[in-house]
Amino acid sequence: MSNLAFQDSYPEELSHCYGCGKNNSHGHQLKSYWDGDETRAVFMPQAFHTAIPGFVYGGLIASLIDCHGTGSASAAAYREQGREVGTLPSERFVTAALNIDYLAPTPMGVELELRGVIREVKARKVVVDITLSTMGKVCAKGHMVAVKMPETMMSSAVTNDEFSCN
Amino acid sequence: MSNLAFQDSYPEELSHCYGCGKNNSHGHQLKSYWDGDETRAVFMPQAFHTAIPGFVYGGLIASLIDCHGTGSASAAAYREQGREVGTLPSERFVTAALNIDYLAPTPMGVELELRGVIREVKARKVVVDITLSTMGKVCAKGHMVAVKMPETMMSSAVTNDEFSCN
Repeated sequence: MSNLAFQDSYPEELSHCYGCGKNNSHGHQLKSYWDGDETRAVFMPQAFHTAIPGFVYGGLIASLIDCHGTGSASAAAYREQGREVGTLPSERFVTAALNIDYLAPTPMGVELELRGVIREVKARKVVVDITLSTMGKVCAKGHMVAVKMPETMMSSAVTNDEFSCN
Repeated sequence: MSNLAFQDSYPEELSHCYGCGKNNSHGHQLKSYWDGDETRAVFMPQAFHTAIPGFVYGGLIASLIDCHGTGSASAAAYREQGREVGTLPSERFVTAALNIDYLAPTPMGVELELRGVIREVKARKVVVDITLSTMGKVCAKGHMVAVKMPETMMSSAVTNDEFSCN
């Protein structure tokens, strides 16, 4: 099995996401991997990713859960088909619904750990539960319904690639 | 009634949020206002806020809905008490739960409009429904449960202010 992050296996023209695209130099470049049957990513917030001083901004938490979720959905779809992540045709998912419960304030200055559990895999839909923790304590829980990226978005991405963030 | 944005009326030590704090020079600085009984904000994404080329990043959408929601919650709490936004004691809310349905891809290059409808106002809890639209078309819907910011966070903010993002 490849050691490539899920997001680093996306096709070049679909790798501009601010949250996780390797071709977005301004973005978070989140990288998710299998860890047994769960998926895992870590992220260190920068000082300006604050909500109020001392605590991480909830929008960043939502963003990381979102990108870890769609990455996990992609990986789960490949696994379901017995295919290596990144092989063609591409399995690229987008978020249909994202529910987040903020359970505790997330402290700044420590690494965030995201863990995903795949709940359901269908041809065009994957359901993922995600936790975001610091120092072993769960600070937020996410529930995501991800759906296969529409063909119209994929073809639009190719058309618009020259106008992208690089 | 003041023309100050809800977020610009937050106390100085609670104005560092990456999404909407006037004291966060790196952030989005979202500004929300009353528009009749609804709340409204607009935002123009930058080129790098992309999901895939041509479309806005879902994490930004979640972030904007989050900050418009907590700002709306604060304003609704003041209105419920017949007080001017920004007067003391401060009504500052944080997100307990955020549910987002992504209804359609959000195109880049056009202004995003957020509108909030206050569904419930209690002393320590406000419920807000939010839409995010481009050119009159709703691209995402959010449902937020916001709760009064815990005293521990408020006092921590004062303590940590010198280590903040500026």
